[in-house]
Amino acid sequence: MPGFEIHHRDPASRARAGTLRLAHGEVATPAFVPLATKAVIKTLEVGEAAELGYDMVLGNTFHLFLSPGHELIRRMGGLHRFMGWERPVITDSGGFQVFSMGHGTVADEIKGRQAHGERTGSVLEIAEEGVRFRSYLDGSERFMAPETSMEVQAALGSDIALVFDECTPFNVTREYTARSTERTHRWLDRCLAWHERHGPPDQVVYGIVQGGVEEDLRRASAQAVAARACGGIAIGGTLGEDKAQMYEVVGWAVAELPEERPRHLLGIGEVDDLLRGVELGMDTFDCAMPTRLGRHGMAIVPDPGARWRVDLAKGRYREADEPVLEGCPCAACAAGYSRAYLHYLLKARESTAARLLTLHNLAYLQRLMAELRAAIAAGRFAEATAAARAGAAPWELAPALS
Amino acid sequence: MPGFEIHHRDPASRARAGTLRLAHGEVATPAFVPLATKAVIKTLEVGEAAELGYDMVLGNTFHLFLSPGHELIRRMGGLHRFMGWERPVITDSGGFQVFSMGHGTVADEIKGRQAHGERTGSVLEIAEEGVRFRSYLDGSERFMAPETSMEVQAALGSDIALVFDECTPFNVTREYTARSTERTHRWLDRCLAWHERHGPPDQVVYGIVQGGVEEDLRRASAQAVAARACGGIAIGGTLGEDKAQMYEVVGWAVAELPEERPRHLLGIGEVDDLLRGVELGMDTFDCAMPTRLGRHGMAIVPDPGARWRVDLAKGRYREADEPVLEGCPCAACAAGYSRAYLHYLLKARESTAARLLTLHNLAYLQRLMAELRAAIAAGRFAEATAAARAGAAPWELAPALS
Repeated sequence: MPGFEIHHRDPASRARAGTLRLAHGEVATPAFVPLATKAVIKTLEVGEAAELGYDMVLGNTFHLFLSPGHELIRRMGGLHRFMGWERPVITDSGGFQVFSMGHGTVADEIKGRQAHGERTGSVLEIAEEGVRFRSYLDGSERFMAPETSMEVQAALGSDIALVFDECTPFNVTREYTARSTERTHRWLDRCLAWHERHGPPDQVVYGIVQGGVEEDLRRASAQAVAARACGGIAIGGTLGEDKAQMYEVVGWAVAELPEERPRHLLGIGEVDDLLRGVELGMDTFDCAMPTRLGRHGMAIVPDPGARWRVDLAKGRYREADEPVLEGCPCAACAAGYSRAYLHYLLKARESTAARLLTLHNLAYLQRLMAELRAAIAAGRFAEATAAARAGAAPWELAPALS
Repeated sequence: MPGFEIHHRDPASRARAGTLRLAHGEVATPAFVPLATKAVIKTLEVGEAAELGYDMVLGNTFHLFLSPGHELIRRMGGLHRFMGWERPVITDSGGFQVFSMGHGTVADEIKGRQAHGERTGSVLEIAEEGVRFRSYLDGSERFMAPETSMEVQAALGSDIALVFDECTPFNVTREYTARSTERTHRWLDRCLAWHERHGPPDQVVYGIVQGGVEEDLRRASAQAVAARACGGIAIGGTLGEDKAQMYEVVGWAVAELPEERPRHLLGIGEVDDLLRGVELGMDTFDCAMPTRLGRHGMAIVPDPGARWRVDLAKGRYREADEPVLEGCPCAACAAGYSRAYLHYLLKARESTAARLLTLHNLAYLQRLMAELRAAIAAGRFAEATAAARAGAAPWELAPALS
């Protein structure tokens, strides 16, 4: 049976290291979870996540519902078999995607970025029953209710299903946030009820804490979710307009959560956010950042002053003979490719560049989380995070053997 | 020092199996040579060609001259180091690309296909001295003479350089073909003269046989090239309007070539053409086909009646649970991906599909050529080619051990 065990706790923070036991295997936590949004890690094979050291990937209910359809994936033996991945899978509920369409720019607001020209379809009606919207693929009218989301996730056969929630936008009234959060709680009950009757018995259901940036609403939402029989708890929605506020909001929520249940932070994965998220007691994280940055020519580097990234498409790297990151053990750096070569491939629009940078970025975050797990176990978590914040690379966080 | 050794000959055809010894290693022949046109095998890393079993790849003088520029590649340590490939490289001369622009649709004529919407720039002047043209990248005016091509290839540091030739189009008079072929021979002399004074001593120069589809001109061109001190000989240009004519034209040329020098067939790589090309005595082949087909959703399969390919983008594969090719040992098939999954990835425009099909197609041709080499050595080449033409997969060409 699925379960979660905490092995080590950092005495100076809420950080903990543990093991998530799921239907398809174990996940060592704290862990970053790469996105296999559309049943593939963009530019990679899903199976390469295992070679990178990842235990779990995240699939997307909304996108797979629209194409190729959950019934097709069920007939093909489920999402694991369909995409060639035998380890744990978490599926998000589709709420974020559905409400991103409805609220127009909420995805951009939440992520603090432009939408990169992605087509996002349109919402026709948001009601208590569920959401009617147009498919961004063919314009057909579709409907998603909490029960639909759970049914899709049951067909996909994920190890962890997330409940269908309203991802409350930032620029709304306290009143709207309160009503929206209440509806999310009612939808949580409907999701759990559906799952209890029809869901795969070994699929863990995570509730989602909403509540915007209002302290009392966030705390109340965390309490409400914790009061339900969720196997785990995710924190979602608007986390604020800057990082300081995000950390504060997450802190309010975590303070209300039971110690023994696993916690997932939705859509967060920058290096400094992972460090702080682990300190705040989060166990798993997912984010498009490492893969999306890679596709746009950016490599994660241990440079806090440069937002932990270097943009290899910049002209200054045209003749840069050094590797993406000196000493990095990832496949792209170990192969000896120069920044100049990657710059050239980016300019030539060769997809190999996106692939190499995706491999680098995912390898970086995997190693970072592995070192944080080891540091928590060894009682040197504070030193490790301090070193990382000061610009140490992940492989420099372990003390030299001697 | 570079050299070529023939180990085995098929008694019933001109097929031979040998070893090409080059500055960066050996190439077992007959061999297919994957394209690393722009210093990368599209969707792969060049180094993956070695994992697939390939000894040599082909880089493109014209494209690398325009970007990133041969001087930059020289400063970065040469093409091998730049693209992370330590084995042999052959570079084509740029003649084909330059004259494709000049003759408008000659590339399509020769290849019998549409140009896939590639921008090809424009030729400003073709003269005895060389060719002036506009770069397709930035519209700047550039000049390429035989000496330029050799200088670029010297800077790239390829193991085999091809001389700069005029790729004579199909729809021209006999008179034009004769004059064009004569100029190609004069350019061959200029290339060899430049290389003798300035070229890397361990770089082998291949002359190129032209002469269109006129038997006397082809034979005369082959004799002319054979009379020069070329380390190897390539057959290029218009090979006819159908496969029967292509084989006839290649046969005329080969009949005039010395046995002891290696022979390359430019731009030819369909399965039946490889079988016939080896029978006709060709040692190496390059072609965009396997990689281009892969990017367009097509997999090579042992089906002579379907042009040796299956188009996985077709709707009939939407729920096809079988692998791309049953029994295929390639990474994509061995991973167990269904045709349905690849179909879905193609529809979702995920670059992973192009990568998987490129891996499959290159693995297929590598194994085919390896089996043909083994068959020539074992004295069962005729049986192997007959089996392949009857629809046997490459791994079915070796007789069962017993």
